[in-house]
Amino acid sequence: MEEHVSPQADSEPTEVFLRACWRLPVDHTPVWFMRQAGRYMAEYRAIRERYSLLEIIAQPDLAVEVTLQPVQSLGVDAAIVFKDILLPLIPMGIDLEYVKDKGPVIHNPVRTIQDISALRPIVPEDDLSNVMETIQILRQELPAAVPLIGFAGAPFTIASYMIEGGSSRHYLVTKSLMYSDPNTWHKLMDKIAQMTADYLVAQINAGAQVVQLFDSWVGALSPDDYRQYVLPHSTVVLKAASETGVPVIHFGTATATLLKAMHQAGGSVIGLDWRIMLDQAWDHLGHDVAVQGNLDPALLLAPMPVLEQRVVKILEQARGRPGHIFNLGHGVLPQTDVESVRAVVEIVHAYELHAASNGEA
Amino acid sequence: MEEHVSPQADSEPTEVFLRACWRLPVDHTPVWFMRQAGRYMAEYRAIRERYSLLEIIAQPDLAVEVTLQPVQSLGVDAAIVFKDILLPLIPMGIDLEYVKDKGPVIHNPVRTIQDISALRPIVPEDDLSNVMETIQILRQELPAAVPLIGFAGAPFTIASYMIEGGSSRHYLVTKSLMYSDPNTWHKLMDKIAQMTADYLVAQINAGAQVVQLFDSWVGALSPDDYRQYVLPHSTVVLKAASETGVPVIHFGTATATLLKAMHQAGGSVIGLDWRIMLDQAWDHLGHDVAVQGNLDPALLLAPMPVLEQRVVKILEQARGRPGHIFNLGHGVLPQTDVESVRAVVEIVHAYELHAASNGEA
Repeated sequence: MEEHVSPQADSEPTEVFLRACWRLPVDHTPVWFMRQAGRYMAEYRAIRERYSLLEIIAQPDLAVEVTLQPVQSLGVDAAIVFKDILLPLIPMGIDLEYVKDKGPVIHNPVRTIQDISALRPIVPEDDLSNVMETIQILRQELPAAVPLIGFAGAPFTIASYMIEGGSSRHYLVTKSLMYSDPNTWHKLMDKIAQMTADYLVAQINAGAQVVQLFDSWVGALSPDDYRQYVLPHSTVVLKAASETGVPVIHFGTATATLLKAMHQAGGSVIGLDWRIMLDQAWDHLGHDVAVQGNLDPALLLAPMPVLEQRVVKILEQARGRPGHIFNLGHGVLPQTDVESVRAVVEIVHAYELHAASNGEA
Repeated sequence: MEEHVSPQADSEPTEVFLRACWRLPVDHTPVWFMRQAGRYMAEYRAIRERYSLLEIIAQPDLAVEVTLQPVQSLGVDAAIVFKDILLPLIPMGIDLEYVKDKGPVIHNPVRTIQDISALRPIVPEDDLSNVMETIQILRQELPAAVPLIGFAGAPFTIASYMIEGGSSRHYLVTKSLMYSDPNTWHKLMDKIAQMTADYLVAQINAGAQVVQLFDSWVGALSPDDYRQYVLPHSTVVLKAASETGVPVIHFGTATATLLKAMHQAGGSVIGLDWRIMLDQAWDHLGHDVAVQGNLDPALLLAPMPVLEQRVVKILEQARGRPGHIFNLGHGVLPQTDVESVRAVVEIVHAYELHAASNGEA
């Protein structure tokens, strides 16, 4: 895929995270964490005592502060702009509420052609101008070596929230719509995909140096369903983002049997969860793509020797090949001790890549 | 594995379900459904209006009636004794309650060596005599062509309920115990495995002709964790059950990357969920084992043409090879229309196996 080739040699990036995204040699494996800004951090909890999630996101100075917390505290190789995947639904006309101990609740779920027609088309630069402003400020405040990641929810994951009216266990309303009214399904997915493509491109134009597409819940689908109902729409989004020239990370959980199709949909980096061995996944995908992952977030609650052993095991599986970004298989859990997260950064940064590649490659 | 060989030719079973378990040729693919007795059936709801889940299980005449409902209504090829995987926890001293709209709640979770020591060893024949009586009656009442399946929860799945105190999303308390105190973890798993082995053997002695081990939630683990913390204990259970000479079904969900290790742990049949293509899973496992599955339960809510197409696609993937039992990838959902379940039985039974094997094998 042409849009996935690495940049010309004369414009090779120097940032280790960007280099790894393009599978260029690096002197250490870059590491960042999904939900690296969050409740496990005292600095974050202090802000959350005074402001709601949406209040933080709405105020660029607060969103910037929260985004910078893990960069300063952990020494990670990338920042990710603080916001939520459901944010663009609000200007689209979705009545979204974050309910304590329950998560997002949508009071007007989208289930019919009429519901879809009622969704307001958005102009991300205007309707989500606070996100764009946050990105612009972050690009000024972040150290040059720490690139900024923008992101969006992928069409399936966003559609599942819209249709179910919140989180779900079996995605039964979503799957029923998919199976019983594919025309309505594809209309909704088209609309979400177009919005998401515009949204990612707007984030890139505002300064995001990488974007990640979160298809967090797509692992609920069979490979057949993924190819038929999801792949064409994710492809639209990933193509639009990739054509800007920035690296694109394509992530999901429980995707062991969907990886090839996800790679086909697009992305210069495929995000893996812990249910698959990193080396097996990479061999299966082929080495023309970078991989990100894949420590079980629960391992951050393990004693240090167990945690260290598992981090090293993942690094060993990457075998010093260019194109591995260390991350968890999903977000940092609120119960996590920040010292464990910091230790992972240190272990990853201290790991000798060249010894690994000489010894095993 | 010696215990997995099919019975001597002079003792070959005639029941199509048992034949498929032993990978013997059959004239149609056998089909049954996990949770085939349940809330989607009017007959079951009528009984549940008057009795709780535990009341039905405690009274063999009621448990027999509920077990027989889908056999009479659907024409399935196997019956599964009506009970719950958490049942043996009650005589072990677990304070278990089924809370409406929430599921099982354990008021005294098991998290320390002291908690484990306090678990009462059980004698299934005595402590779960109502289950054994239900099995004995069912063997008299079931048509000869419809074998009876006994079952138990697998050590990991049972341990996760005991430790978390109920259902879980991230299995964080479970994994934390596993990682931080492997000695305690293995002690608990030893105790559950021994209980489960005894319980399955008791069900077989009472008349169960097949047993299924449900490791429903094991797909939350990485392959490394499965091998280190689970496999040895599941092996104990599966070996004890297999040595009785009956077929043993080993089932889990989201297990695409665990299948080889699950096969190594044991079972004459591996249960698959819909996240993996049946043919790919079977090729990956090797054809020295039977497979069961693997329709997404959500497809029972699809329009008939979609449902039929997907059922046939699974049958086509089995290619008429001996050793496929049709089932869902998990239990029938309460929202299901019984007519759809009945249609699946008809489609599976009408499918011409020999055409498939001649055409494609």
